[in-house]
Amino acid sequence: MNAPTATLHLLPEVNQREVPAALIEALKARFGDQCSTAQAVREQHGRDESSFEVPPPAAVVFAESTTDVADAVRLASQYDTPVIPFGAGSSLEGHLLAVQGGISLDVSRMNQVLSINADDLTVTVQPGITRKQLNEEIKATGLFFPIDPGADASIGGMTATRASGTNAVRYGTMRENVLALEVVTASGDVIRTGTRAKKSSAGYDLTRLMVGSEGTLGVITEITVRLYPLPEAVSAAICSFPSIEAAVRTTIQTIQLGVPIARVELIDHNTVRMVNAYAKLGLREEPLLLMEFHGSPTSVKEQAETVQEIASEFGGNAFEWASTPEERTRLWTARHNAYFAAVQSRPGCKAISTDTCVPISRLADCLLDSVAETDASGIPYFLVGHVGDGNFHFGYLINPEDPKERETAEALNQKLVMRALKLEGTCTGEHGVGLHKMGFLVDETGAGAVDMMRTIKRALDPKNILNPGKIFAL
Amino acid sequence: MNAPTATLHLLPEVNQREVPAALIEALKARFGDQCSTAQAVREQHGRDESSFEVPPPAAVVFAESTTDVADAVRLASQYDTPVIPFGAGSSLEGHLLAVQGGISLDVSRMNQVLSINADDLTVTVQPGITRKQLNEEIKATGLFFPIDPGADASIGGMTATRASGTNAVRYGTMRENVLALEVVTASGDVIRTGTRAKKSSAGYDLTRLMVGSEGTLGVITEITVRLYPLPEAVSAAICSFPSIEAAVRTTIQTIQLGVPIARVELIDHNTVRMVNAYAKLGLREEPLLLMEFHGSPTSVKEQAETVQEIASEFGGNAFEWASTPEERTRLWTARHNAYFAAVQSRPGCKAISTDTCVPISRLADCLLDSVAETDASGIPYFLVGHVGDGNFHFGYLINPEDPKERETAEALNQKLVMRALKLEGTCTGEHGVGLHKMGFLVDETGAGAVDMMRTIKRALDPKNILNPGKIFAL
Repeated sequence: MNAPTATLHLLPEVNQREVPAALIEALKARFGDQCSTAQAVREQHGRDESSFEVPPPAAVVFAESTTDVADAVRLASQYDTPVIPFGAGSSLEGHLLAVQGGISLDVSRMNQVLSINADDLTVTVQPGITRKQLNEEIKATGLFFPIDPGADASIGGMTATRASGTNAVRYGTMRENVLALEVVTASGDVIRTGTRAKKSSAGYDLTRLMVGSEGTLGVITEITVRLYPLPEAVSAAICSFPSIEAAVRTTIQTIQLGVPIARVELIDHNTVRMVNAYAKLGLREEPLLLMEFHGSPTSVKEQAETVQEIASEFGGNAFEWASTPEERTRLWTARHNAYFAAVQSRPGCKAISTDTCVPISRLADCLLDSVAETDASGIPYFLVGHVGDGNFHFGYLINPEDPKERETAEALNQKLVMRALKLEGTCTGEHGVGLHKMGFLVDETGAGAVDMMRTIKRALDPKNILNPGKIFAL
Repeated sequence: MNAPTATLHLLPEVNQREVPAALIEALKARFGDQCSTAQAVREQHGRDESSFEVPPPAAVVFAESTTDVADAVRLASQYDTPVIPFGAGSSLEGHLLAVQGGISLDVSRMNQVLSINADDLTVTVQPGITRKQLNEEIKATGLFFPIDPGADASIGGMTATRASGTNAVRYGTMRENVLALEVVTASGDVIRTGTRAKKSSAGYDLTRLMVGSEGTLGVITEITVRLYPLPEAVSAAICSFPSIEAAVRTTIQTIQLGVPIARVELIDHNTVRMVNAYAKLGLREEPLLLMEFHGSPTSVKEQAETVQEIASEFGGNAFEWASTPEERTRLWTARHNAYFAAVQSRPGCKAISTDTCVPISRLADCLLDSVAETDASGIPYFLVGHVGDGNFHFGYLINPEDPKERETAEALNQKLVMRALKLEGTCTGEHGVGLHKMGFLVDETGAGAVDMMRTIKRALDPKNILNPGKIFAL
């Protein structure tokens, strides 16, 4: 960790580049109905789940093929104009906002499964397919794609932000699960990275460089990801704890013992209360862990017994079990509705979400101090976490009309991030840097590493047209 | 895959850059005894396990700290002179050869364990520590570092080549197991990449960019890797098969069934014969699989039973089991001695090693045709493989004085690589590109992707001083 910056990390200045009318004409000539300048369409593509507001893009191109993407990028390059790839629009960090103007390149129509290789546990898809659609389409194979960031995000967007979510504790993140890519470069050329082989030492790992590059180095047009056999047995449980600390210590011990748990999600008592009000669930209003175990029936039983023993040491009891898909869906309702329930609990509010992730042994230190700090601030919040990975999210529910509240929330976030960095963690476990964490990125990795990123960006995108103004100022 | 190049892939032309006497003087002034220009030292650093011969570096600097590395790189940069990082010298692909002249930067004295975090299953080490030394030093923790490329390579070198080996089928490669790095850049600056958090979306994945960059983008000075608890139970077995095909089909089915086997190594009947002669092992001279199972006693038993059933379907029998560490070591002798046994079987020969890796469903197609082709060529060879990953190595045992033999071996390798690429595999599963596979890299990934690598290299190392002339011509 480096010396923290003294200032709060707020939205950097918006610096709109003018979009030439000739580009819009050229796009309309090339794309016809696939290019829209309608206000409503532009506005829908000019925001995401972040709390920032900037002017919308000048046009939206709906790409239907890699050739479409390549042609759109080539035209944008010709006119030095930013291109912002758009999938499902579920970014939390302002990735989709046209902070330097430009056009939105919507790939949601590129949503096909291109090839399934069940024998190798891989599938190749277009970027606009969402994770739920993918799982629906491969159902018959007995395989599944485990990464679940909550939102029904596009696989392209998940690749671009190195997403993870529940299940990552067992199955890894997009970093571990993307094998190969097709990418349109800043000059509109099409390249391929990686192969379907499980491992390779063939040159620079361009696949991993693109994963998490947030649309700033290329537009992803094909993705090959790993699949997993549906587990023979699945069992889910919900368990309440007398305190957040008890739930967290149970998690730490579970991970340190090497239990191959598939999901372990924390929901604090505030959030349980919100979810109860929203979805009429009648859960005990105490901190709880939602857990899922995958494996052979014997293994699932062993894992569950081990975790029950650990939980009971920390006062966790009243395990409620679910073995059928329907029962499991009911249990997971609490987790999947947390965000919406929280936002509804304070009408008109905006949620500012934190995303720190620390080594598992540091989780209690990081989380408990931040809970105390946030409680003391008086800002309403929800708290959920993929705690098995050391990753959790506070959602500060602020009144967007009250600059003081935003300032308090940002100050809390700042303290939390500094604490996480001191504990050898990261400012963002899974949401990405986007607009909101540029300063934190420097705090985390140092100016030298960010300079290296900037050098790579300048070399691969000399006109700075690919989602400019994200990750670092440029 | 792209259209194959028509020519054989032989050593590119050597283009020696002159090393200024002033640089040698400056290095001697800064490093004293840590800088050597003795012929024997230079020659020892001017070769590796590849079959190429080029003039040795002009000097060798023995770095003892990150500051030493940074100072050496800074001086080399000042004099536009190549710097070639050197760990254990076990590269098979000419990574250590001074094809453009320059100095060797030996980091073998930087061999300390810097910090063990047993609670998080991580350890931070200097690059010169070897994998065996690392495992020795962490023994008391009950943890181990699984990656085993055969040679007692340095962790720095393994990082730089994205190494793997036996055990990767279960524990992954250096790609999956490196969490964070300290790197000296081409200008002599020190940067850090990654953190000890299990996952992160904080900007470009510089860690994964450095892993596998073969010393061309930076000199690695610290590495944080994952550790694993020593398995509760370990069981190893050797099993003979009536044919290579039977051994390969057993492997494919084992992987496709999802058995979490820790090691599954193929040794063909030629190689068994060589190992018998070399180490007096008395093994049946038939193709065999060496297997290892890790887990709870129940799980190990289950895994072993499943694999025995599969093997018996394919005529594999005569399982010989080992459960104590001593018995296991005896069984593994066959695998670990294969290379030396093979080279000794033809006095004066050099081994040219192949390294293709294909998706598991394509393994039989790739391997069996190549065996037939190699048998027909009359060149003596050995054949071993990390077949659970779809990766295997032919070692063509050529008479280095006979250009025809080298040509035949290179032609066999060329055919094998083209076959692997057609089957959606890679030309190098774990050895790296080095000097020998530059042409294949273009065949595999296309000129566009290699251009992107070259653009990154030019941007991060504008003077082309970091291990120049490896991976791609520049």
